[in-house]
Amino acid sequence: MIEVMKTDQVGFCFGVKRAVSKVLRELGKTGNKVYTLGPLVHNPQVVAMLEEKGAIPVDDVNNIEQGIVCYRSHGIRKEEEEYIREKGLVALDATCPFVKRVRTRALFLKKQGYTVVIVGDEKHPEVKSVLSYLSNDGIVLQHPRPIEAKKVGVVSQTTQDLETLNNVVGGLMEQVEEIRVYNTICESTFLRKKQAVELAKKVDAMLVVGGKTSANTTKLFHMVKKVQPNTYHIETEEDIRPEWFTGVKKVGITGGTSTPDFMTEKVERLVKNL
Amino acid sequence: MIEVMKTDQVGFCFGVKRAVSKVLRELGKTGNKVYTLGPLVHNPQVVAMLEEKGAIPVDDVNNIEQGIVCYRSHGIRKEEEEYIREKGLVALDATCPFVKRVRTRALFLKKQGYTVVIVGDEKHPEVKSVLSYLSNDGIVLQHPRPIEAKKVGVVSQTTQDLETLNNVVGGLMEQVEEIRVYNTICESTFLRKKQAVELAKKVDAMLVVGGKTSANTTKLFHMVKKVQPNTYHIETEEDIRPEWFTGVKKVGITGGTSTPDFMTEKVERLVKNL
Repeated sequence: MIEVMKTDQVGFCFGVKRAVSKVLRELGKTGNKVYTLGPLVHNPQVVAMLEEKGAIPVDDVNNIEQGIVCYRSHGIRKEEEEYIREKGLVALDATCPFVKRVRTRALFLKKQGYTVVIVGDEKHPEVKSVLSYLSNDGIVLQHPRPIEAKKVGVVSQTTQDLETLNNVVGGLMEQVEEIRVYNTICESTFLRKKQAVELAKKVDAMLVVGGKTSANTTKLFHMVKKVQPNTYHIETEEDIRPEWFTGVKKVGITGGTSTPDFMTEKVERLVKNL
Repeated sequence: MIEVMKTDQVGFCFGVKRAVSKVLRELGKTGNKVYTLGPLVHNPQVVAMLEEKGAIPVDDVNNIEQGIVCYRSHGIRKEEEEYIREKGLVALDATCPFVKRVRTRALFLKKQGYTVVIVGDEKHPEVKSVLSYLSNDGIVLQHPRPIEAKKVGVVSQTTQDLETLNNVVGGLMEQVEEIRVYNTICESTFLRKKQAVELAKKVDAMLVVGGKTSANTTKLFHMVKKVQPNTYHIETEEDIRPEWFTGVKKVGITGGTSTPDFMTEKVERLVKNL
């Protein structure tokens, strides 16, 4: 029988737990239509579960005429918030407080006269949200490049890895007189990666469970794969292929911040019975 | 004949030139005793030249009862400055303005509530000076180590290399919420290193001319030696050994910020006539 080991940090993180329960609580009340703007969290199974319970996912805020609008954990764009206010819709803010901290710090840095750099992925909704609150007056970087500035203020996407943040800051240091960095990488993401990498060294194969669109799960996967080539990113237990485990005695399991416990548990049961 | 190439950045830097001419100007006037506190610059030949012209070097400020006291380019310690003021001595401040900037930034950061980190060598007079103005309330680091702080403000010794600064900042990033860095490495030191490393790649041997106690010359030497193993740190042309140049066609010469032009020129002439 295959021995299965899991990281301590597994299951929903604080922000995801908070977002999901906010929406569930609202759905429990009657009479209100509850819209979620974009996927509430980057996990299709969780989104489907909420949909089953009555949540209505919409991509474009302009399609909502009335009811309750829930802001996703990655935050909302400034213009969306303005629309919601003007339209008189009821807002249910499920933005992760750690994501909001990125925005607060970025706005503070802008006010203080810094050129704001967000270390992150420009396509990710969290980064788009922060940038929108800066009225797009910010630079998104994942690698250092020449920028024209004397004073640079840096924040990081919450799911960023420290190595990338350090690399960008190092590259900017040469160019500027002052650099002020708020390390806004969230503790949970950071610990999860650390534990996963440690576990990966002790096992023969690793399974990283979580949404394919989840930034933190994808980063977790790539980080783990570096130390354990026999690593697979799966969304559900159905993605598992038995041939991965030929000659394997110990399997490590970890999951992204938006991966519910029941999903990693299903994976665990299946692997134990292989 | 051996071909000799020199870096553009060679000879006294701005701060050293300024310090030396301040003292020379003062020595040109009559009637005043001119003391220099510690070596004015870290070059024994320059210090000897000033001594010949009448400058009196002292290590301990308490030994001066009257006259003019010249502050060295690396800065003075706060308690020394206080003694000079109380004693009513005439101060001639030859502190390099870039060194003074380190102090100003460090004091500003302290006032703003940051735990101040100086990236530098705790034994170097520049660092000792900055630390004394912080009433020793600062941490001197050349490698990252765990520190207890939420907000860290970083300055660097002017002759620090960027790699060390980045390395320390990167190591602190993991531990703190905010890190505010003033890159106070002086432009001249930075350019000198860059040019020296480039030159070292084009030649068969490198000579780095400058005081053995000069921090910037020593760093320059180590940096150059990494790319050109056939590199020697010499104080004067007398240190040169002909056997270094067996089979050597091209020799590169550079010097520290406190190395006078005439000294690199003497080296150049000797090498050409080998």
